[in-house]
Amino acid sequence: MIIQMNPNATREHIANVEAIIEEAGYTVHPIYGTHLTVLAAVGDERGKEGLYERLLSQPMVDKVEFILPPYKLVCREVQKGISRPDSVIQFEFEWKQGKKQVTIGGPEFVMMAGPCSVEGRDQLMECARIVKKYGAVCLRGGAFKPRTSPYSFQGLEEEGLKLLAEARYEYGLAVVTELMDAHHLDLVEQYADVIQIGARNMQNFMLLKALGATKRPILLKRGMSSTIVEWLMSAEYITSRGNPRVILCERGIRTFETQYRNTLDLNAVPVLKKLTHLPVFVDPSHATGRSDIVVPMSLAAAAAGCHGLIVEMHPNPAKALSDGAQSLNEEGFQILMERLPAVIRAVGKIAPWEPAAVPV
Amino acid sequence: MIIQMNPNATREHIANVEAIIEEAGYTVHPIYGTHLTVLAAVGDERGKEGLYERLLSQPMVDKVEFILPPYKLVCREVQKGISRPDSVIQFEFEWKQGKKQVTIGGPEFVMMAGPCSVEGRDQLMECARIVKKYGAVCLRGGAFKPRTSPYSFQGLEEEGLKLLAEARYEYGLAVVTELMDAHHLDLVEQYADVIQIGARNMQNFMLLKALGATKRPILLKRGMSSTIVEWLMSAEYITSRGNPRVILCERGIRTFETQYRNTLDLNAVPVLKKLTHLPVFVDPSHATGRSDIVVPMSLAAAAAGCHGLIVEMHPNPAKALSDGAQSLNEEGFQILMERLPAVIRAVGKIAPWEPAAVPV
Amino acid sequence: MIIQMNPNATREHIANVEAIIEEAGYTVHPIYGTHLTVLAAVGDERGKEGLYERLLSQPMVDKVEFILPPYKLVCREVQKGISRPDSVIQFEFEWKQGKKQVTIGGPEFVMMAGPCSVEGRDQLMECARIVKKYGAVCLRGGAFKPRTSPYSFQGLEEEGLKLLAEARYEYGLAVVTELMDAHHLDLVEQYADVIQIGARNMQNFMLLKALGATKRPILLKRGMSSTIVEWLMSAEYITSRGNPRVILCERGIRTFETQYRNTLDLNAVPVLKKLTHLPVFVDPSHATGRSDIVVPMSLAAAAAGCHGLIVEMHPNPAKALSDGAQSLNEEGFQILMERLPAVIRAVGKIAPWEPAAVPV
Amino acid sequence: MIIQMNPNATREHIANVEAIIEEAGYTVHPIYGTHLTVLAAVGDERGKEGLYERLLSQPMVDKVEFILPPYKLVCREVQKGISRPDSVIQFEFEWKQGKKQVTIGGPEFVMMAGPCSVEGRDQLMECARIVKKYGAVCLRGGAFKPRTSPYSFQGLEEEGLKLLAEARYEYGLAVVTELMDAHHLDLVEQYADVIQIGARNMQNFMLLKALGATKRPILLKRGMSSTIVEWLMSAEYITSRGNPRVILCERGIRTFETQYRNTLDLNAVPVLKKLTHLPVFVDPSHATGRSDIVVPMSLAAAAAGCHGLIVEMHPNPAKALSDGAQSLNEEGFQILMERLPAVIRAVGKIAPWEPAAVPV
Repeated sequence: MIIQMNPNATREHIANVEAIIEEAGYTVHPIYGTHLTVLAAVGDERGKEGLYERLLSQPMVDKVEFILPPYKLVCREVQKGISRPDSVIQFEFEWKQGKKQVTIGGPEFVMMAGPCSVEGRDQLMECARIVKKYGAVCLRGGAFKPRTSPYSFQGLEEEGLKLLAEARYEYGLAVVTELMDAHHLDLVEQYADVIQIGARNMQNFMLLKALGATKRPILLKRGMSSTIVEWLMSAEYITSRGNPRVILCERGIRTFETQYRNTLDLNAVPVLKKLTHLPVFVDPSHATGRSDIVVPMSLAAAAAGCHGLIVEMHPNPAKALSDGAQSLNEEGFQILMERLPAVIRAVGKIAPWEPAAVPV
Repeated sequence: MIIQMNPNATREHIANVEAIIEEAGYTVHPIYGTHLTVLAAVGDERGKEGLYERLLSQPMVDKVEFILPPYKLVCREVQKGISRPDSVIQFEFEWKQGKKQVTIGGPEFVMMAGPCSVEGRDQLMECARIVKKYGAVCLRGGAFKPRTSPYSFQGLEEEGLKLLAEARYEYGLAVVTELMDAHHLDLVEQYADVIQIGARNMQNFMLLKALGATKRPILLKRGMSSTIVEWLMSAEYITSRGNPRVILCERGIRTFETQYRNTLDLNAVPVLKKLTHLPVFVDPSHATGRSDIVVPMSLAAAAAGCHGLIVEMHPNPAKALSDGAQSLNEEGFQILMERLPAVIRAVGKIAPWEPAAVPV
Repeated sequence: MIIQMNPNATREHIANVEAIIEEAGYTVHPIYGTHLTVLAAVGDERGKEGLYERLLSQPMVDKVEFILPPYKLVCREVQKGISRPDSVIQFEFEWKQGKKQVTIGGPEFVMMAGPCSVEGRDQLMECARIVKKYGAVCLRGGAFKPRTSPYSFQGLEEEGLKLLAEARYEYGLAVVTELMDAHHLDLVEQYADVIQIGARNMQNFMLLKALGATKRPILLKRGMSSTIVEWLMSAEYITSRGNPRVILCERGIRTFETQYRNTLDLNAVPVLKKLTHLPVFVDPSHATGRSDIVVPMSLAAAAAGCHGLIVEMHPNPAKALSDGAQSLNEEGFQILMERLPAVIRAVGKIAPWEPAAVPV
Repeated sequence: MIIQMNPNATREHIANVEAIIEEAGYTVHPIYGTHLTVLAAVGDERGKEGLYERLLSQPMVDKVEFILPPYKLVCREVQKGISRPDSVIQFEFEWKQGKKQVTIGGPEFVMMAGPCSVEGRDQLMECARIVKKYGAVCLRGGAFKPRTSPYSFQGLEEEGLKLLAEARYEYGLAVVTELMDAHHLDLVEQYADVIQIGARNMQNFMLLKALGATKRPILLKRGMSSTIVEWLMSAEYITSRGNPRVILCERGIRTFETQYRNTLDLNAVPVLKKLTHLPVFVDPSHATGRSDIVVPMSLAAAAAGCHGLIVEMHPNPAKALSDGAQSLNEEGFQILMERLPAVIRAVGKIAPWEPAAVPV
């Protein structure tokens, strides 16, 4: 930790700060500069966020800076081995033909696809049929919907979850669905294989704490205006409460540009891969809000090195009850799945839906 | 509603859209331009958000635009009378000297002040004594704390609520405290006079829905990157579920500037006063994260026309368990309360703590 | 300067960086932490920006941080005396009744007002008459106009400058007008008392360098997405080339909010007053793009502590050739000038157009 | 054009607006809604931006919206033929082995690479040798440098231009270099094959106007906080003054995220390809400021469909006089050039430096 004192700080001001640092178990190294004094505090900084605020409010302290990142369980450095490998998340589910295993974070690129909302059996089964046909591994679909307007469709709730489970059984697709309230956790984990936390709940800390208690992997979307560090801190909430299986999902940030609903921030992909061992996904549908650029942005995301995508697909976007404008139809989804493998191969990963897919 | 067709749209594309509009109960007015066709749909647009998405995903539809705002209960126009007045929120509480009434949204400027977190009896009583002494009407203090890091102090929870109630009884200050989870509502409304919803929960729709059931006024903070329309839609969630007593509180938005934690957006004050009848508050402490600019930004907020402020005050910011850097100490709070009245008077409001305060 | 080494840095990596630091004339203080090494370099950092980049690209260097601000002439600390006072900019001009002096940065609040563009003699003289009548000291008006579209009105150029000079002579108002190209400097300084640099040119470094050669004060608007530090660096360009008379003018930053053209960032006012001795102005007209909130935002700016305002006034905004939507008409300007003095007095400044204005 | 009247507008207000619309040569279609009136104005909107502002400042006008984009020469629709093809920019230069032609905007992916600044003959020749070796077609290098600090290295100016020309002759690489001032145009066009306009000058309208007079292609970088529409309007400035050869270059926008210098906005690539026929380039070096993510972001840019890249390469980034932290060294550049072809092929383009490159 580096504490920068104000040029007008007296010896007493400096001594006061030194005492606080030492009390907290650090060793102090004062550096008396030509204009001002800097105090370097040596010791393990993690878990001492309270100290940061305390120091910052001492008189004549201008700046306090941590040197180690405040997330300790999700940072890349905790992985053992020279290469500090990505963490791999595996889970199993049953369908009519037996058991099936899904691996996220490994060399196989994972496609999650499906409608924004579960609207009814026909719609969902048709979605499941299509996404399965072209190679998706997981079926996404919202049963509880976070909607900006109280007057918009809010989801089918438990009925939607049951339909998702039915589609899983029929088509052998793992189920990804959103949880909006900690008190629905028991219900949602009965039906879901992966629990999605939406952008608006990325800092719903009550919800994050509750997720420590489930064994389901969590797909944690980035908040619309969350920094990468805040996002990793939210992942740390979940892992520090007992559930290490977190998948990060970039879904666009809010900027001044109005041509797209949000600005998909692909820079986050390689940066996250340096900072954390968690798998990194991208949602180009919500990020852009425009189905007409979902294909190029999906290719770009794969080229940037993500572990998988979650995209919206609807058999008839023009009739969707929510977010039709960003959903691919069957033809669009087919084009996406045909074009992706060449890019995935180009970056050394495997597109398992390719007939000729072989490990590199 | 205005629907702009693509220049390449055929008669069939246009007829398809017209049919959908008419089915939804609108009258269609097509305008055949030199380059493209625009369809004007006449009818009441509110509560028809689903239609928006459906139209936008029709083939050859380039743009769909609502003309009326999507919030109907909180918009200024619902107020009766030529002046369409601000809505006024009143409530009563008891303390050791009897009953006391608080009026928010009227000509009297309302000060809410207190520590970021309730840390213990001594700290809270000292805060209450100070804020009361200089003229605050409400005591703020967090018992449940939303913290970015899972390793930071998370609040005293029910014990904190009890201390707040004790301070209310002793000092005659109404209690404002944050609710983070719908399942704590019963608990929090026992102790709080005003329930605060934090910026990170502004779009926690489960929580918003639950607030329809309480009679307590809600202080709804603006999300860090929420537009004014989204914010009003969140207020609409609460009012449409049965609780019309919502106070909007601007607390800074996220921008690229790093000199302050957030950028206090005072433009929102006069704009909200045009769009909605709800009272508008400002929180300069969280907005800036810097106690050294809280005084000028408070004066600016009052000059912009807000109905009141909520500021952080801590008897000893250097020892605060959270957000010490943004808290005023007693001296700072005194300066603030001494300087505010002249500005409040200048914009035609009353600072009731002024000895000479008389209605203008 | 603080250099943070990567945890994997070897002794050789560290020695390499130490050598570079010493070569640049600093003393090195290495701090060997539990996880990594930090090097503190003691010495005067200013004027050594090249070193920053060089260090940052050394192997195993994670972060380099300057401790002193990179602007040295405009920072508050260069002012002599304990109070390190604001710098005061004075200039004189002639009109039909003799000489007149203008003082910017002192206790008197300075109003600059006038049309966005000079459109013709009648319009300009009418503007001058009105702004003079209610108390403005400077007349603003664009002769060269930076327009987003090549098809929009681009200004009257020299003819516009001549009309401004005529209005000055007639009404005794100093002239503020924009310079867009260094090669017009000779022309513009013949007519202008204060040279305005627009937001889009805040980092037009060729233009900034040229301004070192003029004796006219410069009103330097903040770039639409410029940080405060970048803005001060642009002021430093001008002062370091020989012209210390720079006035900073906040005019809104670009954010995600669409209710206003830009987001007026009043936080900049008190922060600038800490960082620099230069006078600080605010332009609420361009910042918001909405004449209906110019009055409250002007009052807020004055309450935040600025030294003056520059606002758009047009006798007939509905006929303006540019930016009519943000211009006050005579009635609006009158209201503004009537309401401002009480706020200006409240913050200890003088509104010289008040009949009863006396020094505080 | 759609003009939305205020709900309180009277017949007279509406008649006033109708008269203005008709005077401007449009046909008016009034639509009397249940709450308010909308006026649709049919006619060619382009070149009538002044009308927009005039209408917006009429009493009781709430909103005015153009339907056609304000840029007319650069929009995709002006291209003839059903496919409305990309425009292709060709130019020729001489080197020691004769003439060479460069084609931008066609199926061949074009690499531009080189140092941030020209620092001297040895550095530049070494750069040229390396970028040539791995397949670049153009050599970039700054002779005039826009630097945030007046104390930073400002470039070698004409000496730098001469060195670039020498490298061109020796290595057969076209020269791309930045122009910062219209009055250097004669000088720069003597030496440069492509003239770069930096982000900070994207709305330096005096400079844009001057570029209409040169025959050199212009690489127009996006302003740090410019919308796509503003960027296209700047391209329109150049084309409308006589030079249609503009290449758009995305180089990152300013957001709240601090992990990268700017946020590379790849969404702009597919969106631009819909809106305009101009070639689209990407600069991942300036966009991110981090050489460690330049390779994945370059692959992502190619996957998103850009026509080429401009990247920084320095033989010894640790000794660079500017922006060393974002420059690839020889090894990094080699890795980039080896990995790009597979992605370029995957999106149907040609990487001409691949031994086996054949048209698809």
